[in-house]
Amino acid sequence: MTTTLHNDRLLRALHRQPVDVTPVWLMRQAGRYLPEYRAARTRAGSFMRLCQTPELACEVTLQPLARFPLDAAILFSDILTIPDAMGLGLSFSDGEGPQFTRPVRSIADIEQLGVPDPERELRYVMDAVRLIRRELNGQVPLIGFAGSPWTLATYMVEGGSSKDYARIKGLLYDQPTALHQLLEVVTETVIAYLNAQSAAGAQVLMVFDTWGGLLTPRAYQEFSLTYLARIVADLNREVAGQSIPVILFTKGGGAWLEAIAATGCDAVGVDWTMDLSDARRRVGDRVALQGNLDPAALYAAPEHIRKLVAQTLADFGPGAGHIFNLGHGIQPGVDPDHVRALVDAVHELSKPYHANAADAG
Amino acid sequence: MTTTLHNDRLLRALHRQPVDVTPVWLMRQAGRYLPEYRAARTRAGSFMRLCQTPELACEVTLQPLARFPLDAAILFSDILTIPDAMGLGLSFSDGEGPQFTRPVRSIADIEQLGVPDPERELRYVMDAVRLIRRELNGQVPLIGFAGSPWTLATYMVEGGSSKDYARIKGLLYDQPTALHQLLEVVTETVIAYLNAQSAAGAQVLMVFDTWGGLLTPRAYQEFSLTYLARIVADLNREVAGQSIPVILFTKGGGAWLEAIAATGCDAVGVDWTMDLSDARRRVGDRVALQGNLDPAALYAAPEHIRKLVAQTLADFGPGAGHIFNLGHGIQPGVDPDHVRALVDAVHELSKPYHANAADAG
Repeated sequence: MTTTLHNDRLLRALHRQPVDVTPVWLMRQAGRYLPEYRAARTRAGSFMRLCQTPELACEVTLQPLARFPLDAAILFSDILTIPDAMGLGLSFSDGEGPQFTRPVRSIADIEQLGVPDPERELRYVMDAVRLIRRELNGQVPLIGFAGSPWTLATYMVEGGSSKDYARIKGLLYDQPTALHQLLEVVTETVIAYLNAQSAAGAQVLMVFDTWGGLLTPRAYQEFSLTYLARIVADLNREVAGQSIPVILFTKGGGAWLEAIAATGCDAVGVDWTMDLSDARRRVGDRVALQGNLDPAALYAAPEHIRKLVAQTLADFGPGAGHIFNLGHGIQPGVDPDHVRALVDAVHELSKPYHANAADAG
Repeated sequence: MTTTLHNDRLLRALHRQPVDVTPVWLMRQAGRYLPEYRAARTRAGSFMRLCQTPELACEVTLQPLARFPLDAAILFSDILTIPDAMGLGLSFSDGEGPQFTRPVRSIADIEQLGVPDPERELRYVMDAVRLIRRELNGQVPLIGFAGSPWTLATYMVEGGSSKDYARIKGLLYDQPTALHQLLEVVTETVIAYLNAQSAAGAQVLMVFDTWGGLLTPRAYQEFSLTYLARIVADLNREVAGQSIPVILFTKGGGAWLEAIAATGCDAVGVDWTMDLSDARRRVGDRVALQGNLDPAALYAAPEHIRKLVAQTLADFGPGAGHIFNLGHGIQPGVDPDHVRALVDAVHELSKPYHANAADAG
């Protein structure tokens, strides 16, 4: 745990300190677009087995780092490990996405939920974190993560993915008190889970609010942002003498950027529907920004990806506080060579934006 | 065509003139949530047959008006009639959505596209408009509509619905000139189609940009808004001495509200992710606003729907220029009694906001 970190660009950018080049990592960088991932997934037999076997989760986490000069690793796992540990019974059927055997369908269901012990019910995640840290050996920092309480609640109530969110929205509008009760217990679980990840070795923590953008402004404030702010406030922000930065990402949450930045997080993830120049103007020096290339840009030819990377870097402009990423996860059909083009372009083309930071890193 | 209009609230609100109560209609008000719609759909044998048989399209258009005191009818049709008339071969398979036999996959495909004659290849739509106007007999105005060029292009290039928009985004980033060529011919078709609808009797025109919100701000400006503005500029805005108001709706386009309002349209549709108070503050007196209750609010109990309607009305506030609607179409699982609760609540609860307009209408 006291290994020297050889590449600290991500941590520096999260603290808005000078860097030599803009750090880059990609949401879902360990995933189906990589043939070696698909091979590991086949060997595991199921997606859950892949998540639950620390050696396999570690192998898959490290795969993109063996190919590309990425500036961070992110734990390979799934946001739905939490509801699974809360007793909902998670499985993944090919092509149909996640499904819970025991979704939350009544107040009685909500009242039965407890906060699992991360080192017991979610020990496989902590073991994966410990193993990945050992294998990384200080190459780059490791990001741990969890889903936001609102996003987790949508899956728990719907029983899986949803097209219309009829059940969770019905609950929100008809029984807001019950929904708050559910969000409370999930929030406590997220906090315990993320604190366990940083104790196990995660050096940065990120919360994915994938479905916050489905909410009205009032409902976002009441049912998602409130709990994100509680998480930021209650996380251990220093572990073994190292500060643990926190990144919040609400997909479709561009309108609420200032409010997200005001939670006390270190960085805000931005999707591709907003210019980073506007985002930076709006948050000023309060937080770092992570993003925000259109994930579909990776379907373009490498020379066009390069131009789009240049544009994203120019949008953020000179100075510290930018972590390059996509605006959402890599899509499965993307050519890995296109990902290489992106990563190389970020490092090459960002140098001029950090010209006054020659002594950085 | 010279029938007296008995209820002109919609037209007055679109022109920001005083009304007695806020007019209300609902996107997809003629649809699967109504048992009588499902019966007509079964009788028709296929969704396409329902669209293409003027008597059935008319019957289905009028169904929600027989149940609820709505302030407008909207032509029952589908945005994909245009690409079908352009020769792409549309069919709908149950559960899988629309599919084209001959999607646009090359520059040669784009070059072969011509502008269909609305009174020939799309005569069934114009016949439906004429029949509906006759059957409505001045009860409420009839809204005609089309998809936006960008939204139509996504279906034409993807070959149907899509999860990742790989082909259209690849085209956008790799061959923008080819995409513009496609958008040009679709724009010409949309203009001819909407002008034919108003000539046939449609009293208001609406353009649905369902997928504009998938774009970056730059790409939205270049590939969607430019063509929306061209449509607004080129439509016949007066037919037989009556002005024809135009409503633009980009789902997920809240960030670009001012730019949409600046096209010269009469009203902008707003989805539920923005407060109408903010929207009104941003557009001022330039346009009317249409929206914006969360469609999932219809899953709530009638007493809660009533409160949510009250909140939406309060968000817009007093005065003219609000057309009540959902922020997107009614979902199929909604109880028709909940729709009644919404429509009644709009009319009852909006009276105080029009107290200075006692002589309206």
